[in-house]
Amino acid sequence: MPRLYNFSAGPATLPEPVLARIREDLPEWQGLGSSVMEVSHRGAEFMALAAAAEERLSSLLAIPKGYRVLFLQGGASLQFSAVPLNLLRGRETADYVDTGTWSHKALNEAGRYCAPKVAASNEGATDFAIPAQADWQLNPEAAYLHYTPNETIAGVEFHWIPDSGPVPLVADMSSTILSRPLDIGRFGLIYAGAQKNIGIAGLTVVIVREELVGEAMSCTPGLLDYAVQAKSDSMQNTPCTFAWYVASLVFEWIEAGGGLEAMADYNQRKAMKLYGAIDASDFYRNPVAHECRSWMNVPFLLADDGLNASFLEQSKAAGLLALKGHRAVGGMRASIYNAMPEAGVDSLIEFMAEFERRA
Amino acid sequence: MPRLYNFSAGPATLPEPVLARIREDLPEWQGLGSSVMEVSHRGAEFMALAAAAEERLSSLLAIPKGYRVLFLQGGASLQFSAVPLNLLRGRETADYVDTGTWSHKALNEAGRYCAPKVAASNEGATDFAIPAQADWQLNPEAAYLHYTPNETIAGVEFHWIPDSGPVPLVADMSSTILSRPLDIGRFGLIYAGAQKNIGIAGLTVVIVREELVGEAMSCTPGLLDYAVQAKSDSMQNTPCTFAWYVASLVFEWIEAGGGLEAMADYNQRKAMKLYGAIDASDFYRNPVAHECRSWMNVPFLLADDGLNASFLEQSKAAGLLALKGHRAVGGMRASIYNAMPEAGVDSLIEFMAEFERRA
Repeated sequence: MPRLYNFSAGPATLPEPVLARIREDLPEWQGLGSSVMEVSHRGAEFMALAAAAEERLSSLLAIPKGYRVLFLQGGASLQFSAVPLNLLRGRETADYVDTGTWSHKALNEAGRYCAPKVAASNEGATDFAIPAQADWQLNPEAAYLHYTPNETIAGVEFHWIPDSGPVPLVADMSSTILSRPLDIGRFGLIYAGAQKNIGIAGLTVVIVREELVGEAMSCTPGLLDYAVQAKSDSMQNTPCTFAWYVASLVFEWIEAGGGLEAMADYNQRKAMKLYGAIDASDFYRNPVAHECRSWMNVPFLLADDGLNASFLEQSKAAGLLALKGHRAVGGMRASIYNAMPEAGVDSLIEFMAEFERRA
Repeated sequence: MPRLYNFSAGPATLPEPVLARIREDLPEWQGLGSSVMEVSHRGAEFMALAAAAEERLSSLLAIPKGYRVLFLQGGASLQFSAVPLNLLRGRETADYVDTGTWSHKALNEAGRYCAPKVAASNEGATDFAIPAQADWQLNPEAAYLHYTPNETIAGVEFHWIPDSGPVPLVADMSSTILSRPLDIGRFGLIYAGAQKNIGIAGLTVVIVREELVGEAMSCTPGLLDYAVQAKSDSMQNTPCTFAWYVASLVFEWIEAGGGLEAMADYNQRKAMKLYGAIDASDFYRNPVAHECRSWMNVPFLLADDGLNASFLEQSKAAGLLALKGHRAVGGMRASIYNAMPEAGVDSLIEFMAEFERRA
C-alpha cells in the first residue's frame, strides 16, 4: 500500500521525511542502544533534543525576548482551563471572541473561573464570517482577550491580528501555528495542540510573556501552573517525550524548507488553488466569507447532498482520505496543513472535477 | 549499534517485539495509507484500537464490573490533583500514607484542595521500610486513603494491599501496574503513568469505581473531571493516540506471554536473582527492608562511593545503560520492569561480580 493523501483535520498528516526519520531512529536512536521513547527525559541526550527544539521553534517564530516557551501535555483543550487559571490574576472577567466551536468551548470553560464576556460573536446567520473589530465590545477591565485565529471546523480564519490595546491578547493557534510568520510580540500568550502543524497528539506548545506568569489561582493544579512549568523547563513531571521528538523533526523540516515565509507562500498557493476550483464550479460551494477563508481547513458542500456518500467512497478509492466534513457543517472538509503536499491538493482538485463530470 | 540493556526508571525499556511492530507499522498502518499517528482518533480504525486496548487491559487485570477505565494525558502527577478534585466529594480531608518521594508529592498536591492527614510515614530513620498497618492512624472521615504501592526512587514496594475499611482505597500504581495480578475490587481508584510497564510517556491509565465518579469540585478543569472523560470514552479532546497505540501493543505482548501470573513469576525471579547477588556480596548493599523490596526498582550502593563513577562508566561500556541511582538515594538503581529481559539482569549480575573482582 503506498502512502495516500490524508486530509484529516487532526491528528493530521506528517511530512514524509519526518516519518522516514522516525522509522530510521527505531529501534536505536543516536547510537544509544535504545529508542528515543525509552530514554530518560533527564538524560543528556533528551535534554539536548528538548533544548534544540525550543531554540529552533523560537528561531522559526522569531520569538522576542521576554517570552517563555513551554512544551506541555493535555491538548489545547486543557489550556481552556489553564489560561483563566493563570491569567485572571485577581480580575473577575475576560473577553472572548466567539467565532466558532472551539472559541465557544474555550469561553464555556472560562466560565468555571470567572464571568467571561463575549466581545464579539458570529453565531447564527454569520457563522462563516468574522465580525469587524470596529463592532467588538472590548472591556478594559478584562484580564485578557481570547480568540481563535483559525476555526478548524468551519474553516474560518483571521488574516489579521486583533488590537487588544493594553489587555493581553491570547490565541488558540492549534490549527494555524507555523503556517506563516507570526508577530509574537502582539500576544500575551498563544497555545497550540501539536497534532496539526507541530507534530502528533500529546504535546501542547504554550508561548507566554514572562510578566503574565506567576499569579495562578490557588486552585490551579500544580502542573497547570505556568510558573511551575517554566521553572522546571517543562519537566515538572515526565513530558510526552516522543511527541516532543516528533516536533523537533517537524521544526527541522520547516527550517530546511525555508522557514515560515516559504511555508506561507506554499500554503497560500495550495489554498487558493482549491478555493479557485470550488468557486469555478456550481457543483461545489464553500460557505465562508472570502476575506476569512482558512488556508488550513477548507470545507466544501456538494450542491446535491445525496451525493456525499458516493463522493466519500470514490475519493477514498482514489487515495484521498478523511474528507468527510464535520457534522456541524456537513459536506466535505479538506485539511491542508503544512505537511499536505501540493500534489495532494492537485489530486483532490482533479478528483473533484472528475466526480462532477460523472455525476 | 545493537540494542543494549536499558535500566532507566522511566521512560523505560520497551519489549523488543513491540518496537519491531512500531517500526513495521511505519509509514503505513493497517493498510490505511497513513501511519497510526496521522489518523483521526474518531475514525473507525483508531476507535477499534482504543476499544480493543481497553478490553485487553480489563481482561489482563480481571477488572470487575462497576469500574471505568480511562486513558488520559498529563502523567500520574496530574492525577495528584485530579484525585482530590474528583474524590473529595464534599469531604474535608483524605488520608495519605507517606512512604517516599512520590507519595509525598501526592500528599502535597492534595493540600491544595483539602487538609490531608498523614496516616503513616516512613520518613527519617525508616525511609526504606513500610510501617505496619497496625500502626497507621486511619481517619473514618477521610474521603479516601491514598498510598504508593511502589516507590520508584527508594525501591520500596508493598507486597500486600492495605485494608481501608469503608474508605475508598486509592493507589498510584505507576511503577508496579501489570507486574503481577491485582485484586482491583479492593480499590476505589488506581492510576498509572504509562512510561514504565504500560508503554511510553504521554498516557495515564485511571481505573475508577463508577460510584465515585460524578461529584468533582466546581473548580475542576473539565478535562480532569472523570465523569466528563468517562462519558466521552476518554475522547473529550484528542487523546495521545500514539501512546495509546503503544499501550495496545504492550497489552498484546503481555497476553501472548501468558498474562500477569506468568509476568509475576518472571519479575520475581529476575528480582530475586539480583537481590541474591547483592546480598551475597560485601561490596554491594541494598538498603531496603527485605519484606518491602521492590521487584521493579532495585537500588544498590557500593561499599566505596568513590567507585561510583567508574562503575557507571564501565557498566555503560559493557552495554548496561542508565544505572545511576537517584540523587536522593545515591549509588546505583536498576529498574527491571516487565520489559527488561532476564538476560539483562544476568548480564548486570555478571558485570557486578566482574567489577567487584577488579576493584
